[in-house]
Amino acid sequence: MTPIVAVIGGGQLARMMAAPATALGITLRVLVESSEAAAALPAHETVVGLPTDPDAVARLLAHPRPAALTWEHEHIPAEVFDAAAAAGVPARPGLHALLYAQDKIEMRARMDALALPNPAWAHVETEDEVEAFLAVHGGAGVLKTARGGYDGKGVRVIGSPGEATDWLRAAADGGPRVLIEEKVPFDRELAVLVARRPSGELRAWPTVESIQRAGVCSEVIAPAPDLHGAVADEAARIASEIAHGLDVTGVLAVEMFVAGDRILINELAMRPHNSGHWTIDGSRTSQFEQHLRAVLDLPLGDTTPTAPWTVMANVLGGARIALASALAEVDDAGAKIQLYGKGVRAGRKVGHVNVSAGTREEAYARAVAAAAIVRDGGGA
Amino acid sequence: MTPIVAVIGGGQLARMMAAPATALGITLRVLVESSEAAAALPAHETVVGLPTDPDAVARLLAHPRPAALTWEHEHIPAEVFDAAAAAGVPARPGLHALLYAQDKIEMRARMDALALPNPAWAHVETEDEVEAFLAVHGGAGVLKTARGGYDGKGVRVIGSPGEATDWLRAAADGGPRVLIEEKVPFDRELAVLVARRPSGELRAWPTVESIQRAGVCSEVIAPAPDLHGAVADEAARIASEIAHGLDVTGVLAVEMFVAGDRILINELAMRPHNSGHWTIDGSRTSQFEQHLRAVLDLPLGDTTPTAPWTVMANVLGGARIALASALAEVDDAGAKIQLYGKGVRAGRKVGHVNVSAGTREEAYARAVAAAAIVRDGGGA
Repeated sequence: MTPIVAVIGGGQLARMMAAPATALGITLRVLVESSEAAAALPAHETVVGLPTDPDAVARLLAHPRPAALTWEHEHIPAEVFDAAAAAGVPARPGLHALLYAQDKIEMRARMDALALPNPAWAHVETEDEVEAFLAVHGGAGVLKTARGGYDGKGVRVIGSPGEATDWLRAAADGGPRVLIEEKVPFDRELAVLVARRPSGELRAWPTVESIQRAGVCSEVIAPAPDLHGAVADEAARIASEIAHGLDVTGVLAVEMFVAGDRILINELAMRPHNSGHWTIDGSRTSQFEQHLRAVLDLPLGDTTPTAPWTVMANVLGGARIALASALAEVDDAGAKIQLYGKGVRAGRKVGHVNVSAGTREEAYARAVAAAAIVRDGGGA
Repeated sequence: MTPIVAVIGGGQLARMMAAPATALGITLRVLVESSEAAAALPAHETVVGLPTDPDAVARLLAHPRPAALTWEHEHIPAEVFDAAAAAGVPARPGLHALLYAQDKIEMRARMDALALPNPAWAHVETEDEVEAFLAVHGGAGVLKTARGGYDGKGVRVIGSPGEATDWLRAAADGGPRVLIEEKVPFDRELAVLVARRPSGELRAWPTVESIQRAGVCSEVIAPAPDLHGAVADEAARIASEIAHGLDVTGVLAVEMFVAGDRILINELAMRPHNSGHWTIDGSRTSQFEQHLRAVLDLPLGDTTPTAPWTVMANVLGGARIALASALAEVDDAGAKIQLYGKGVRAGRKVGHVNVSAGTREEAYARAVAAAAIVRDGGGA
């Protein structure tokens, strides 16, 4: 018996599910946007199409029937859940959970209801409401579209109501709703990654620190350095309460701000996440293997780190990837490369490197250097 | 630029090349015997056919042209090399090297020519020759067909010439030639795995000990325990001399007997090998990644172990694989599972487990227990 897991989305997150699926004898059937998608070649079976296309979704769910349906991004139409239910394929996480990763207004309201720590925030429909929010929060705020954002898109720091006009108008015309959040003067960003299976079993990886540049994750340090015990406990508690409270199945990433002794929830993702790529080389069980185990309701894997420190550095496309000249240098840095098979263009995440080492400084320096070598083609 | 590596053979060795190919952005195009083959789903591109079928080989080598052709078993017809040369695709290793992994008589003669340590051996064509050999080697010998054997097939311990009759007759009728070797009273079996690229760069993993049961590898202990420094040096020297002397490209496995203070060459394989499966979880660079790097003439990877001890235990089919019930127990043993996607039948290698630990005893006990759990379905 070879269980089939159906995945929506052909990017690097689906791509990186292929290796653990193969190791565990799981067949990975992926709905890819095109045959050029990052996941198209590594996927065991592919269906080309969009999740908005009922025929494509039907082929994804067709005989032999998948044991579970999951995805690598949140942009899943509600009709997909109906189709899965009709086909008898459990969708994991369910729409009742995924909603809170799809819609930032729903998420904020639910965090409030669970008494979990939000930044100050408000659903805004008019410039007057924006102005009122700015007036009581130091004249600056973070404007977000409730749906559709990623990697810094759909997010804008503003200092005046006029900077919200276009999104407010779009919302009034039926576009995504808009919210505003206080601009948290944070000291650092943490991410907690957990996995939960339908039975309720939950496993967490150590809390990590995420370094962002221009709204895009640049490096992840595992574990988060010099983390106060109370802060670590609180971060883990928040992620666990969200996973259980929202009935999440699969991997859940909770991004958080630390500001002084406050921890505030930033964003949720219900799928493998960039902040967990370090687990491929730095943990007994990677987030990709764990996600497959969780959505299949299999026992979850050991999340123990395999080294004192692991640093992940994203390779952001800009130049070219010259594997042959880079490989020796990167290897000398003790780095493991993961490329995503994507066309290179400025700022795009085209791969990452992981470096494990005995000290944080060493792992960090080597990872940053290795990512630069991969991006720029090496010096030799 | 995505280099394509063409691979002949659809078994687990080709299957396990898929994950590192994906990570390095290499496209793996595999000639599989059937669409049910172990490598068929994980391969990035598949051609269904046999290496004896010129049309299938032509499709394997077709546009876009592979950067290299390699394989996961030695049974490659000479015509394949002609086809690769005509298509401008380098075959690695070349036939001038692979010959010595295909034919045990050629291999023994070449080891003699290189002054490397063979057991006593003879090419035999008659029962009289067998009798003469047995007479001077204690009345017992190991009879082998020069070609076509694997996993204990094509190998037979004999004590009288009559036990050789069928194979000698087959050889006289145009079947594989036959050789006889002294029955080495060995204390243990070692394997040395190296990789070599066309430029001549060579990297070795630590020498391992291989435990055989009924002619099939059962466990591999990395590194080989309590290995005398002189023995370790000699084993490494032999493997290096073979790789350079035979102009091997890709991974080379040299299986050796240790008998007192003698080391004797047992068999050669020019491809990833069961004795190197521990490298997937126990070395910075796995043998599957290294083979791809070597045949593409890319810089070779760091072979440093990631733990003091890693033990690989094969899962030999007999019962059933019950992943769901086994996974929690296996995980508690710190084991990483690799399944081959093959139908289960008695004695067949259907997967393996790797366990890394601080002591050999712990790694060994856990690996054997985990393999038994995977095979038998777990107790919970």
